[in-house]
Amino acid sequence: MDRRRLETTFEEINKFGNTATGMNRLAYTREERDAVKFIEDLCIKEGFKTRTDACGNLIVRREGQDPELPVVACGSHVDTVYDGGKYDGVVGVLAGLEAIRSFNDNNIKTLHPVELIVFACEESSRFGVSTVGSRLSVGLLDIDSLSAMKDKNGISIHQAFTDCGLDVSLIDRCIRSKDEIKAFLEVHIEQGTHLEQKNLEIGVVTGIAAPTRLRIKIEGVAAHSGSTSMLNRKDALLGAAEIALLLEEAAKSESYQDTVGTVGVINIKPGAMNVIPGYAEIQVDIRGIHKESKEIVFNRLIEGAAEVGEKRGLKITWEITSHEDPVLTDKGIQDVIVSNCKTMGLSYTTMPSGGGHDAMNMARYYPTGMIFVPSKDGLSHNRDEYTPMKDIVNGAELLEKTLLDLAVQSTS
Amino acid sequence: MDRRRLETTFEEINKFGNTATGMNRLAYTREERDAVKFIEDLCIKEGFKTRTDACGNLIVRREGQDPELPVVACGSHVDTVYDGGKYDGVVGVLAGLEAIRSFNDNNIKTLHPVELIVFACEESSRFGVSTVGSRLSVGLLDIDSLSAMKDKNGISIHQAFTDCGLDVSLIDRCIRSKDEIKAFLEVHIEQGTHLEQKNLEIGVVTGIAAPTRLRIKIEGVAAHSGSTSMLNRKDALLGAAEIALLLEEAAKSESYQDTVGTVGVINIKPGAMNVIPGYAEIQVDIRGIHKESKEIVFNRLIEGAAEVGEKRGLKITWEITSHEDPVLTDKGIQDVIVSNCKTMGLSYTTMPSGGGHDAMNMARYYPTGMIFVPSKDGLSHNRDEYTPMKDIVNGAELLEKTLLDLAVQSTS
Repeated sequence: MDRRRLETTFEEINKFGNTATGMNRLAYTREERDAVKFIEDLCIKEGFKTRTDACGNLIVRREGQDPELPVVACGSHVDTVYDGGKYDGVVGVLAGLEAIRSFNDNNIKTLHPVELIVFACEESSRFGVSTVGSRLSVGLLDIDSLSAMKDKNGISIHQAFTDCGLDVSLIDRCIRSKDEIKAFLEVHIEQGTHLEQKNLEIGVVTGIAAPTRLRIKIEGVAAHSGSTSMLNRKDALLGAAEIALLLEEAAKSESYQDTVGTVGVINIKPGAMNVIPGYAEIQVDIRGIHKESKEIVFNRLIEGAAEVGEKRGLKITWEITSHEDPVLTDKGIQDVIVSNCKTMGLSYTTMPSGGGHDAMNMARYYPTGMIFVPSKDGLSHNRDEYTPMKDIVNGAELLEKTLLDLAVQSTS
Repeated sequence: MDRRRLETTFEEINKFGNTATGMNRLAYTREERDAVKFIEDLCIKEGFKTRTDACGNLIVRREGQDPELPVVACGSHVDTVYDGGKYDGVVGVLAGLEAIRSFNDNNIKTLHPVELIVFACEESSRFGVSTVGSRLSVGLLDIDSLSAMKDKNGISIHQAFTDCGLDVSLIDRCIRSKDEIKAFLEVHIEQGTHLEQKNLEIGVVTGIAAPTRLRIKIEGVAAHSGSTSMLNRKDALLGAAEIALLLEEAAKSESYQDTVGTVGVINIKPGAMNVIPGYAEIQVDIRGIHKESKEIVFNRLIEGAAEVGEKRGLKITWEITSHEDPVLTDKGIQDVIVSNCKTMGLSYTTMPSGGGHDAMNMARYYPTGMIFVPSKDGLSHNRDEYTPMKDIVNGAELLEKTLLDLAVQSTS
């Protein structure tokens, strides 16, 4: 592993879309495509086979001794949010690139082919949908869904494809078969403070949480705050308060499973100092990597809310506004990563990923592993996001070793 | 008591300011002044002495057998909010008017003089300050405070006075001495649902609640709702929820004293589905007629909020945004009213007044009593406010009898 090369490549790629207000390499813009082309050119120089699929995913292949075997793939993305940072996505792409360059440097042969995938359009910032490239790779998005997407300037994703020389009518060809890929690995910055707070170098991701979101409406009776006895109130805000607290309690009791529950939005009516709130609405986000644990929290919330309604004479209704099932990473791959951390003397912990990643889609179809490196102050989607180069090197070296284990380094 | 005359007068006075959207007799407008003049003319016909003081209060005097004795006064107001109803204020003025007309009809003599006062500018709608006329009567408002007041059209209260033929520089002359008034009585619609719900005819007001209002700021840490463990959060909304519930508990434990506590406003930041609220602000209204009971609730709130902050690692600060002391009505007058209810076969309850009234100011200086009649659905400050005429008659008859008791009906 050539640490200086990794550093230089990091500096080079972050020249694309580097503006005064942060990194702006939005999906399917010239800045993003140029950054992808930059990676491709480096790979061509290394003698790797490259191709760009119908949706703009760059797939770089380092051949294995047996080209018929399924590939061991790694990757991430180089697109950013508006005014984003230099690390989200890029770290995973460069870790994979440096790993396969390092194989070349050391004349390493692997039984399985190894791939680096630079996924297109991971961020939802431009078209409102995230992980477009990886979704299309596994058939989780169809052309009809794509048709509706427009960016804030009214440019359709169809048009954006055309502008990049891509043909949206061919996107079905992005789908890769189940037996084409043996394993997928992604290195990513944590985007949280868990590793930083515990002063650890590596997070071995156990699963990628998926949100279940719901809106709860609480109807009481608005009344004068001065002339209505405490014993004769139907205060919607107090109902909402109890529900928020019981969600916390339910999620806390499942925190050993890394499930979380949050009320992030509350609106009350009429919202006047001298009127008892007659109406409240809260928006709830429940996330976890274990489907059953999420369900336990969800059910306690719903049952508890009904009890609050009963007790306080409030009408409580709810609707699920979005629901996704979480995915677990592959236990076998987790074990390989953990074992490599030990061998390499890297401090680590196992942990869930709260946010979504390309690996989330890959994990639904292929054995998948994910490696987190620390984020300073947990910042991400922010020009100030930062991960020290030594942590990136740790992630890249761990990825390299794990790729070799999975792709089976040949001794011949 | 001439029920038909009362009804006619009610219809007549509500011709002033009667618009398609509700009653509009804003303070110091022609509509309101005309309504006051209408009352004055009726009183002059009855042979009562009338005068208008420097702030526009109409004072009608029915002489007593001993003119040197302090007067027994009653009254209310005829101004309305924007798009108000026909009952708030008017009921009290007409009950008093009918009572003294009835004295004339029956050639009743009283030892003490009896007064009907039509207070000016009871509603805060026009100039942002309520009960201006009664405040000025007891010296609770000075010319400097008045100087700042403007209506929404930018017309100063000075100008409004001038337009009504009043001289603001003379308002100190409104103040009446402590020994000038023996007692004050006000009949008013309840503006709540207490009487209606209990199917009672009369509320004997025990005191007039005053609000203590405060703003509580709760500072936590905003963080990603997916990647932050339940055990590592500083959720400002949950702090606010606990504080709202402990206020409810504290006020409930003082509900035997009729003290109430309400969180009517909550705002959180950033207020996004996927972010733990880092900041919350609530506005609290504590009301009660017993100063000590209000203080108990206030202290429990403040102590409890500090405990919540300690427990959750939140920074909690508060400021009092307004504070008024409640006033109790005179126990002796309450007893007279209760005794009269019994004699007259009126169903009644003792109860606090949640809202403010002219009687609130009078009660700080003179023994004061207040009589509530039911409000349909508790509606007030609303064109749909309604009190059946039979309830108004009950209030007027009860006032008449109580005035006679306090002014000492002469048998000679």
